[in-house]
Amino acid sequence: MSTRPTIGRGPKVQAAVHAATVAELAATGYAALTVEAVATRAGVHKTTVYRRWADRDSLVADALAAHVAADVPIPDTGTAEGDLRALARALAAWLSGPTGTAVVTTMVAEGVRVPAIAELKRDFFAGRLERAAVVVTRAVERGELPAGTRPDAVVKAMMAPLYLRALITAEPVGDEAADQAARTALGAARAGVL
Amino acid sequence: MSTRPTIGRGPKVQAAVHAATVAELAATGYAALTVEAVATRAGVHKTTVYRRWADRDSLVADALAAHVAADVPIPDTGTAEGDLRALARALAAWLSGPTGTAVVTTMVAEGVRVPAIAELKRDFFAGRLERAAVVVTRAVERGELPAGTRPDAVVKAMMAPLYLRALITAEPVGDEAADQAARTALGAARAGVL
Repeated sequence: MSTRPTIGRGPKVQAAVHAATVAELAATGYAALTVEAVATRAGVHKTTVYRRWADRDSLVADALAAHVAADVPIPDTGTAEGDLRALARALAAWLSGPTGTAVVTTMVAEGVRVPAIAELKRDFFAGRLERAAVVVTRAVERGELPAGTRPDAVVKAMMAPLYLRALITAEPVGDEAADQAARTALGAARAGVL
Repeated sequence: MSTRPTIGRGPKVQAAVHAATVAELAATGYAALTVEAVATRAGVHKTTVYRRWADRDSLVADALAAHVAADVPIPDTGTAEGDLRALARALAAWLSGPTGTAVVTTMVAEGVRVPAIAELKRDFFAGRLERAAVVVTRAVERGELPAGTRPDAVVKAMMAPLYLRALITAEPVGDEAADQAARTALGAARAGVL
């Protein structure tokens, strides 16, 4: 049959199509993304894609959800500076990697138009923030940061300069930028303004 | 003639089409923007738009450039906190206004694909940063901030949390967020980490 997927059905096809979708987003952006190109990259027939996903928007929303579902390890180095730096470096590595900025850009741009992507973006960042916040809670408990410091505010202060670089100023997002972002958040937290 | 613009030619047409393009971006986003809708909103015939702009991308790039060309007043309140707060409030007002976030989102999303928009984004932010940096230079001269503080780093530390809210976490971007962003930047700067 001409519509039979060449790499089999089930989870393997789904994973291949998800990965191909994210790779196409990184290569061409959402506007130029076609189901044909995704199918070719995934090694499946395009009807396989159409059978599983109603349209391009739901394909992209689903692929983004799969991509960001991967868990991020939460560091426990014993100091606020070590933990924040580890978090910042992990975020910087993702943003400067082959897919991170494309995934974020797509969430920002298409979240305006596609409710499923807006919801995904909200849940993704809320989840990351919530998990990362524990490093600040621990630092407050150790007396490294003032009592009453808001954990989410510190994590956001660390994340914000990295997203600014990736999305707005198009500056490199490497370890140096990550360490600077961690120091900025920590400096503000120690000053008691977060 | 059917192609005669209904509001006249020249700068008035151009300004009306620019404003209509930005309004359409805010209302529907780039993906759904059509020249027809822009023409209707501007009160001109669509051939008037096509005669002046080769395609949708150049129309949008041109409208964004016109929108961000408006100058932003640089405060001089006498204190770093007052100046940074005024800058942050102006940025927050723009981001939470009817067009700011749509303009930024379009720059972020389409800058990936359209070189003219990428260049515009880079120039826009570099220009804003450069002009705003004087408030930090003055604060260092007054002895309010440590010598060696990098003006652009302080301004970016103030801007970053507001862009994070507007683009990523979709939290409100009002005066409260602006004041918090100014305090964060100032706290980090006073701590000597910027």
